[in-house]
Amino acid sequence: MYRLGVLISGRGSNFHSILENIKKGFVQNARIVVVLSNKEDAGGLKIAKDNDIDAFFIDPKGLKRDEYDKLLIDKLKEYEVDFVILAGFMRILSTGFIETFKNRILNIHPALLPSFKGLHAQRQALEAGVKFAGASVHFVTDELDSGPIIVQSVVPVLSDDTEDSLSERILKTEHKIYPLAVKLLTEDKIKIKNNRIVIKADEIDDNFYIINPVCDKKE
Amino acid sequence: MYRLGVLISGRGSNFHSILENIKKGFVQNARIVVVLSNKEDAGGLKIAKDNDIDAFFIDPKGLKRDEYDKLLIDKLKEYEVDFVILAGFMRILSTGFIETFKNRILNIHPALLPSFKGLHAQRQALEAGVKFAGASVHFVTDELDSGPIIVQSVVPVLSDDTEDSLSERILKTEHKIYPLAVKLLTEDKIKIKNNRIVIKADEIDDNFYIINPVCDKKE
Repeated sequence: MYRLGVLISGRGSNFHSILENIKKGFVQNARIVVVLSNKEDAGGLKIAKDNDIDAFFIDPKGLKRDEYDKLLIDKLKEYEVDFVILAGFMRILSTGFIETFKNRILNIHPALLPSFKGLHAQRQALEAGVKFAGASVHFVTDELDSGPIIVQSVVPVLSDDTEDSLSERILKTEHKIYPLAVKLLTEDKIKIKNNRIVIKADEIDDNFYIINPVCDKKE
Repeated sequence: MYRLGVLISGRGSNFHSILENIKKGFVQNARIVVVLSNKEDAGGLKIAKDNDIDAFFIDPKGLKRDEYDKLLIDKLKEYEVDFVILAGFMRILSTGFIETFKNRILNIHPALLPSFKGLHAQRQALEAGVKFAGASVHFVTDELDSGPIIVQSVVPVLSDDTEDSLSERILKTEHKIYPLAVKLLTEDKIKIKNNRIVIKADEIDDNFYIINPVCDKKE
């Protein structure tokens, strides 16, 4: 049983989705042992408490990045965390943090990486006029939004989309692929090879094609 | 009835697909009036001749880019071409050529632009470890593979894919979306607005969701 630490800054909807998928048995080999937030009013803190998961607001006020990240590391180590799950955590992590949990930090980004790294990915997609957007779960490395990609989802971009409508469509798929990535990871189905992710093909066949709203739309 | 000039360098499979879609009436408002190749042995030249379309090998030997492009422009103007369709034409076009046919040149690129511009897009995708790849039909501007996107397709990347197998999967969708883009263009359904393409929503609903092999795989 792997121990997950989740970092949030807001409502924590991806955290919630992973939690629900653990509860219902889709993710069987992991449990969330601690939730940390850099925002005191993050909605995800309440979700954690409602589910008897230890949750802490770690105040960044007046701290340098390394000092703050040291607090995070200490807390995650205290809880003997195997994997760190970034779920809307709106801070750049220090190299020290990333090295401490090398190849054990996951993030989700609302774009078909390597397109549209950084902030406001959905807006970037709309401005680029792409016809498909999506989300990517990836390992975190020192380079922003550039680590090995584990799972991706695809959604259509419609001609009348706003940043909100596109974000919502993408978010629905985030709630499916992030638990899927955690499941694959904690069932030891993922290998990193030449900086790429290798997943057993049967896993992909079983899971990949159910998470594409382009298909759902068709039905 | 719009007049198309097609530029090729090789087998011309996308040219062939557009031609077939004109023949069977999917594309009703266009006909291909001339095919030009910078390679004497391009298979597409034979396809053109077999279909009674005028086709020419324009020899680039010893010519500067502007001089060569002037020959292309002259021939395309002689045939009173409305739109220029790049179908595997393996030369960079000069600014002069692009200005001459401003907003009237289409290209297809085997990637989900803006990812993986330039050569060997499929190999780039494999090396990046993305889970979805695709193709993009776009207007040609001075910046390589960066003009407004008209239609895109999506295909899964499988864990045992080679450059060949992925390229073949993408190519099958190219043969669907390039005729679709030509159809939309020649039915005046496409507008360029803020450097983005606007297509009437009903067109998208009718066409977009049929060209996604991720869905086909599921059925």
